[in-house]
Amino acid sequence: MAQPSTVPVSAAGRAVRQASLREHNLALVLRHIATAGRPPSRADLAVATGLTRATVSALVDDLITGRLLNEVDPAPRTGAGRPALGLVLASNGPTGLGLEVNVDYLAACLVDLAGAVRHRALRRVDLRPVPPLDALALVSELIAEAGAEADRQGLVLAGTALAVPGLVTSTGVVRLAPNLGWRDVDVPAVLGDHPALAGRGLSVDNEANLAALGELRVAPPASANFIYISGEVGIGAGIVLHGALFRGARGWSGEIGHVPVHPEGRACRCGGRGCLEQYAGQESILAAAGLTGAAGLAGVAITRLVEAADRGTPTACRALAQAGTALGVAIAGVINLLDVDTVVLGGVYARLARWLCPPVEAEIRRRVLTAAWSPVTVRPAQLGGDAAVLGAAGSAVRSVLEQPAHWLARDTRPA
Amino acid sequence: MAQPSTVPVSAAGRAVRQASLREHNLALVLRHIATAGRPPSRADLAVATGLTRATVSALVDDLITGRLLNEVDPAPRTGAGRPALGLVLASNGPTGLGLEVNVDYLAACLVDLAGAVRHRALRRVDLRPVPPLDALALVSELIAEAGAEADRQGLVLAGTALAVPGLVTSTGVVRLAPNLGWRDVDVPAVLGDHPALAGRGLSVDNEANLAALGELRVAPPASANFIYISGEVGIGAGIVLHGALFRGARGWSGEIGHVPVHPEGRACRCGGRGCLEQYAGQESILAAAGLTGAAGLAGVAITRLVEAADRGTPTACRALAQAGTALGVAIAGVINLLDVDTVVLGGVYARLARWLCPPVEAEIRRRVLTAAWSPVTVRPAQLGGDAAVLGAAGSAVRSVLEQPAHWLARDTRPA
Repeated sequence: MAQPSTVPVSAAGRAVRQASLREHNLALVLRHIATAGRPPSRADLAVATGLTRATVSALVDDLITGRLLNEVDPAPRTGAGRPALGLVLASNGPTGLGLEVNVDYLAACLVDLAGAVRHRALRRVDLRPVPPLDALALVSELIAEAGAEADRQGLVLAGTALAVPGLVTSTGVVRLAPNLGWRDVDVPAVLGDHPALAGRGLSVDNEANLAALGELRVAPPASANFIYISGEVGIGAGIVLHGALFRGARGWSGEIGHVPVHPEGRACRCGGRGCLEQYAGQESILAAAGLTGAAGLAGVAITRLVEAADRGTPTACRALAQAGTALGVAIAGVINLLDVDTVVLGGVYARLARWLCPPVEAEIRRRVLTAAWSPVTVRPAQLGGDAAVLGAAGSAVRSVLEQPAHWLARDTRPA
Repeated sequence: MAQPSTVPVSAAGRAVRQASLREHNLALVLRHIATAGRPPSRADLAVATGLTRATVSALVDDLITGRLLNEVDPAPRTGAGRPALGLVLASNGPTGLGLEVNVDYLAACLVDLAGAVRHRALRRVDLRPVPPLDALALVSELIAEAGAEADRQGLVLAGTALAVPGLVTSTGVVRLAPNLGWRDVDVPAVLGDHPALAGRGLSVDNEANLAALGELRVAPPASANFIYISGEVGIGAGIVLHGALFRGARGWSGEIGHVPVHPEGRACRCGGRGCLEQYAGQESILAAAGLTGAAGLAGVAITRLVEAADRGTPTACRALAQAGTALGVAIAGVINLLDVDTVVLGGVYARLARWLCPPVEAEIRRRVLTAAWSPVTVRPAQLGGDAAVLGAAGSAVRSVLEQPAHWLARDTRPA
């Protein structure tokens, strides 16, 4: 039967294909270096990628010029010949700025291409009484401080991501952050032109989503199906299915804080009743432990709670057990529905995991239909309570690793 | 910078590419015919696909010989010249056999390539006291009956899928079907060699998954994100995300019947407490409506329930409202978590949707954080209560449309 065996390619088509081949190969070389056990040489890369030695060298030269790679002295070795230089991801090149606005703190950090944290800042402040623009003015100060620190260390800002505990549109508008009291706050309109961002803009995302992406990078479960639960004043979730963040039909997924656990129970800020947040949110736990108000800001109160639970104080232990049970009821529903095999506890839950995991696991055993033969791992976030801000910075710098050609092609003229 | 502009292609590589090009073009032609408003001619297909007239004709000849297409007389038209014959999907060719084992009925159907239902069978029988092998013997009778009917109508069995209300492994073993009392039933080992299956085997899947796939084919919401809820004695869900069935990390997703709605409520067969099934399962509804036992098999009882609710009988209306509220609590949790924009009610819920939708919608309005600006559609299954068995047959025949080359290459010698 007659079939065309080749498809004609126009000259323009060929040009596009060569450009995308170069993009592909740049990313391929970077990926090999990022995941190599020890710094590979150019020769090692040629073997690993199947590209010619000359092609690898040209790519590596471009990546060094673009401050994405550095050459390092090789490890001493036995055998004849001059040892070749090794290649590592640059620690003095593109850097991601992560920012977080949460109900009772602000945070910022810089993460370089190799994943090292180069700067951290944390400010405890109760933002509930603070108008959104005033809160963003505080964020602006954190940006300026981080920008100055990047300059001091010779880093180049590759991108900035802001984590917020709320529902965010694809253009960065915070549609609703109930515990902050924010509605329709257009963050990029306020902060996007900050001089320290060097014209590279700022993306905004839900904090649990960014934290889940951070965990996906540093400690993914084998199946790459997990739910990251961020316990703060509110409770959010980042859902990773088949290795990708699942955002839902309209970007509003992960509102586990408003999953009903006692349908006719306590009234919630959202207008519903018996939401998980009312039983396992940070403030409910502190109230049940008798620590509200006693300790000022929640960070201090959580430390007191940990100390009390460590001493075996009954009210503290009971408060944590009750929260863990409520959390377990909601999580059992999630697992029955989605069959994720791993639950990652983040936010303040990361510090409380020792007391929360046992009751969560008990509810899973009791309520998940497949629990007897399909184990579920419940564990604290590898990145701890900082997962969201670290995930934000990681996302910003990660895009350079994924699309190095975009970075190399950037406009480097001073603005 | 030096980059290879072409990749060497081996002779074997070229042969593989030509074979896959033919596979691709066969499927392309079939897809155009399947979705065309009126039967296209060969010339129409050449224009629509961009293939040459000769290539299209060769492909169409192969598809006609393989009983995938038929030629039909064209619609009368004005204008010069002899009108060309139109092409339609064959109604006398490959046919899918759908089977369903549920708690209180068995069903079978044949669906042809064009989607027409060519045979239906339904047997009301309470399978709870029936051992699995005896139940499968009844299924075997349905297979024989459907095979004879296919022969009588000149149809060829393309594949068979069995829907069961339980957790099924990828090899077709029913790991657990709590309401049937099945554990580790290897269905293909029992039925796979049935002579009427003509050596084409049988796949087994969860009934809500197959029903969701059926709905995805006949009535997908624009976003292609929805949850299909199958209400029977048990309650299952098929979750469609971004147009694909989401099966979970290990294939156990969709157990919405065991999502807790009253954590310390009624004990459930699964060992948990307060599962949705205990408040919105078919038997709970009938019990609350005072119709248990009164009417023998559930199909009859559901008809009585519909009649009673139609007359406005308070117990019937109250039972449905309570079930709808429980269902709405679980669904609100699902939407907060997954942000699906459509909920499809199937199984007996399809017949009860008139009474269930209002309380479900009320709970969504009350409990879903984004309900005020992100509407959720709750509607009965387009395929009604038969969605699972029709979805099973559709899946079996659909694979022929997706991979016609496999069908054409099949061994047609008598077994």
